[in-house]
Amino acid sequence: MQWTGVMPAMTTAFHPDLSIDHDFMKQHADWMLRNGCSGLVMLGSLGEGATLNDAEKIAILRNITRSIHGRAPVVAAISSLSTAGAVRLAKEAEQAGCNGLMVLPPYVYSGDWREMRAHVAAILQATPLSCMLYNNPIAYRTDFLPEQIAELAASHENLHAVKESSADLRRVAAIRSLIGDRLSILVGVDDAIVEGIAAGAVGWIAGLVNAFPAESVALFHLARTGKQNEGFELYRWFLPLLRMDTVPKFVQLIKWVQQEVGVGSARVRPPRLELESDELADAHQTLQKALATRPRIAASDFASSVGANA
Amino acid sequence: MQWTGVMPAMTTAFHPDLSIDHDFMKQHADWMLRNGCSGLVMLGSLGEGATLNDAEKIAILRNITRSIHGRAPVVAAISSLSTAGAVRLAKEAEQAGCNGLMVLPPYVYSGDWREMRAHVAAILQATPLSCMLYNNPIAYRTDFLPEQIAELAASHENLHAVKESSADLRRVAAIRSLIGDRLSILVGVDDAIVEGIAAGAVGWIAGLVNAFPAESVALFHLARTGKQNEGFELYRWFLPLLRMDTVPKFVQLIKWVQQEVGVGSARVRPPRLELESDELADAHQTLQKALATRPRIAASDFASSVGANA
Amino acid sequence: MQWTGVMPAMTTAFHPDLSIDHDFMKQHADWMLRNGCSGLVMLGSLGEGATLNDAEKIAILRNITRSIHGRAPVVAAISSLSTAGAVRLAKEAEQAGCNGLMVLPPYVYSGDWREMRAHVAAILQATPLSCMLYNNPIAYRTDFLPEQIAELAASHENLHAVKESSADLRRVAAIRSLIGDRLSILVGVDDAIVEGIAAGAVGWIAGLVNAFPAESVALFHLARTGKQNEGFELYRWFLPLLRMDTVPKFVQLIKWVQQEVGVGSARVRPPRLELESDELADAHQTLQKALATRPRIAASDFASSVGANA
Amino acid sequence: MQWTGVMPAMTTAFHPDLSIDHDFMKQHADWMLRNGCSGLVMLGSLGEGATLNDAEKIAILRNITRSIHGRAPVVAAISSLSTAGAVRLAKEAEQAGCNGLMVLPPYVYSGDWREMRAHVAAILQATPLSCMLYNNPIAYRTDFLPEQIAELAASHENLHAVKESSADLRRVAAIRSLIGDRLSILVGVDDAIVEGIAAGAVGWIAGLVNAFPAESVALFHLARTGKQNEGFELYRWFLPLLRMDTVPKFVQLIKWVQQEVGVGSARVRPPRLELESDELADAHQTLQKALATRPRIAASDFASSVGANA
Repeated sequence: MQWTGVMPAMTTAFHPDLSIDHDFMKQHADWMLRNGCSGLVMLGSLGEGATLNDAEKIAILRNITRSIHGRAPVVAAISSLSTAGAVRLAKEAEQAGCNGLMVLPPYVYSGDWREMRAHVAAILQATPLSCMLYNNPIAYRTDFLPEQIAELAASHENLHAVKESSADLRRVAAIRSLIGDRLSILVGVDDAIVEGIAAGAVGWIAGLVNAFPAESVALFHLARTGKQNEGFELYRWFLPLLRMDTVPKFVQLIKWVQQEVGVGSARVRPPRLELESDELADAHQTLQKALATRPRIAASDFASSVGANA
Repeated sequence: MQWTGVMPAMTTAFHPDLSIDHDFMKQHADWMLRNGCSGLVMLGSLGEGATLNDAEKIAILRNITRSIHGRAPVVAAISSLSTAGAVRLAKEAEQAGCNGLMVLPPYVYSGDWREMRAHVAAILQATPLSCMLYNNPIAYRTDFLPEQIAELAASHENLHAVKESSADLRRVAAIRSLIGDRLSILVGVDDAIVEGIAAGAVGWIAGLVNAFPAESVALFHLARTGKQNEGFELYRWFLPLLRMDTVPKFVQLIKWVQQEVGVGSARVRPPRLELESDELADAHQTLQKALATRPRIAASDFASSVGANA
Repeated sequence: MQWTGVMPAMTTAFHPDLSIDHDFMKQHADWMLRNGCSGLVMLGSLGEGATLNDAEKIAILRNITRSIHGRAPVVAAISSLSTAGAVRLAKEAEQAGCNGLMVLPPYVYSGDWREMRAHVAAILQATPLSCMLYNNPIAYRTDFLPEQIAELAASHENLHAVKESSADLRRVAAIRSLIGDRLSILVGVDDAIVEGIAAGAVGWIAGLVNAFPAESVALFHLARTGKQNEGFELYRWFLPLLRMDTVPKFVQLIKWVQQEVGVGSARVRPPRLELESDELADAHQTLQKALATRPRIAASDFASSVGANA
Repeated sequence: MQWTGVMPAMTTAFHPDLSIDHDFMKQHADWMLRNGCSGLVMLGSLGEGATLNDAEKIAILRNITRSIHGRAPVVAAISSLSTAGAVRLAKEAEQAGCNGLMVLPPYVYSGDWREMRAHVAAILQATPLSCMLYNNPIAYRTDFLPEQIAELAASHENLHAVKESSADLRRVAAIRSLIGDRLSILVGVDDAIVEGIAAGAVGWIAGLVNAFPAESVALFHLARTGKQNEGFELYRWFLPLLRMDTVPKFVQLIKWVQQEVGVGSARVRPPRLELESDELADAHQTLQKALATRPRIAASDFASSVGANA
């Protein structure tokens, strides 16, 4: 599969009773693809993978792979408290028709390189699927250093990409310096995409795209084609929203933005709770300001996708 | 239940295929109680709760509550990625005959006080069991501040104790300053027990006790009765071992020590891997030095417990 | 000299034009000694050593050594941006009649052990004065580990004490485990003195003592003589004030408390600025509550010292 | 003055007795300007400002301003333990003929925004010279946030530039988003220059330029003119050296590299000590590899500058 372009880290939609709203998710996926996204990453941090059980995860994957049927790759995030659990989930994701895997370090325990390498290797070897390593030391404490990523790339043919979400943008050039184009490098933090592309990134695992797919795709392409000035104006407009992706409550914020712009619900599963009081007022102000100055970018309507899937 | 004395954070024993060795666990629990421990805490961090599924957890609780039948309280650690999962586990632990619960913040997500309070409250309200809050900001990122602990104590009658595992020993006096004896304060880091007792702690959720119960109980009682000089000599001897409890590989280290002194196996579930090379040599040196200078303390033999349970 | 008891980290008093108020400092020093303090530490962090030039430092030392003339040891903090500057200051402090030195790591640069050892060694060798190493990794980034402190003690006969201001109280027992009573251990954070004494500390380099010397000395002696319950009530009363010693604005807070209780001025040199608005209101509330419930402890009046020195 | 291009954070050369080698510094400055540098920043972190006294600082400034006489701007770093000291130094730097000031937060004390703003404002108001604010929260703990930088820009007409040395490259776009081109943004960490330019930086306060000026200038211009592929090959070659600028021993490393390539001495003032053993071997390996694959870039010889100044 191709690890390029704008791939949403898709949110998971819930009914009022917090069961999964598969119908909405189909429409949401379709809408983002119609607006130029190049694939879908399911069950990630933003997808609230941590509060979904395995049966729910597989149901989500089956629903999306069926509804997309081949229009774009579907990627499953593989995260678990144990190596055994991660391997089992990887195999089930393959059975569910996924095209690729996003491989996370274990939840909670962050061990030394020998342990983390063994965990990742077990997932990589569990299926023949194309894999992307996910490096997010802030969220998961395990930091896959450029040298370690190079070591994994040398040992695992089906490792094809790396998602860099350390806040240290120097990592993109560091990985590329070591292994050239052996791995596709994707940026995993919304508010560093332009800088990441300048350093050699070819894709974006994005968050606000769940609410603003056309703007996200437009920004990405301006940056990829070196149109700096035009790109900077769009980036400047988008940044206050994109920064919602890099704070602890990014799930609550992005789902709330989706709800406000009419594409989804703000519902989250506990321990996360929906925004309240000051933080809600702040988010409101940021969003209102963005909507008032929203650039005109041709976009496919969400409503039309309802009909398309009816 | 009484939240005092030395309560092991009990390790979980595995067969070579990494299934649970319930027979050994019975003997191990019995042996620690015969050596003066005042209760047992199951499924905690040291008990590898993160890699046990719920069915395994309940099987462990049933096995121990049955085998102990009332000689001492059995406490279940309640930890989960989701609030719903934590509540379900709490209810099942009650059904399994536990006497108390150790309440953890959620795995992975560390939210604000409103969210963390809601998570903890849901567990506290799930059963009428006596509860101990577990504060370990290093491991779980959520830091329950003294003022927040006081707020929980005021709202939840069945919150009876707090286990302090922040490395900041000033927290013991801070909690006691706020709420006097409303909560029993227990120390959760092995290498700060003497200082914790001086500040008002009345119990110890201990780690090395899994291998050295008689020494742990003796140290605790010397500290509780103000025998500082005698206590210091024992502490000085014990500290290099006790420090094994406060490093990321504490599970591997303590289980390895158990194996070396003949009470258990070093086996752990991945992503944890057993010790190797330099770290193993260091542990070996520390243990050999301790064994060569081990103080004479009357202890009940592990072997005799085999007969007792046969 | 004896490194025991309660030794104030003395504040530096300023006239309205921020020049040094030597007259007040004499009275202040005398008052603290009359209330049971066992020595005086000049020019430390709390003494605003960083904004005093060398001439001012020597003037302060001369003034205090003369006015105290031998009633108690006077210690000079030796801190500098360069090793050469620290050595020069140490020699001048000796000339000024000091009895001991408090040796700090360099300002700004925190190097490896080889570099920090060389810096400290140069100061220790600069004079034959009795020295206390000051470990405060939070303020100065350099963390002198127990093993390194043991190495310095083995190499330098005139190193007689260590002031532990890492927030990690386990360090006291760790140092004592390694070197027994080779060094006197003094606690350098106000709000951990009782725990520190329990672990073996014999002295206190204190902050709030500048405003509450009788209470500080009473607390210290209760803790040293194992009177835990009586001591705890006093500690509970004192803790909200003592915590003012362990926040970034400790200088502003302690000098403001001095001013409020009638023994000094809140004036500080920039870049520090005096407290304002919310932080001032908070400090006011804490102090009022403490004054309203102040325990009755026999104390020598500040006013009487004015006469004594007149 | 123009705050653009490659401006060396110039090292300070020492004789064997660690007094300042003014003759060498003249040649060194001349050589870097002949190789395309656009100005000189004196007395910074890399210039060991912390171990120079004020008289030495002024002597250095006089020497360089005289020897350069107007060929390029000379900038003085203003750093001090006290606000009063910083203001005095700023005025003396103006007297010494400097064209601009680089304004640092105070050494050691990092206060709140009110305090840090007052410190910076005092320096900005001390002279009419063009000023660049230096943000380096890793070295100095004070983090000037984009909003605070915007506030300073609005209040101080002679604030013309900001040097961003937080490792967080998102700051460049954040500042530019807030204030457009009101301030020139310069990158202050060597190994992020290409990414910084992509985000809108127009200058580089550089470190390895002290040894490799032609390569630094070439890299900068490739990045500024959007020649990504050519630029990446040079960046890849240069990065292992550039990373020497962003570790605690950057002064020792860069001066050692200067010595190895024949333009200076590795001598540093304590508490810094010259490299030894493993760290020296590592540096040697990195440098040898770089020299063996050094790209051909037209450069002006160091030797020729000796003649020029003779």
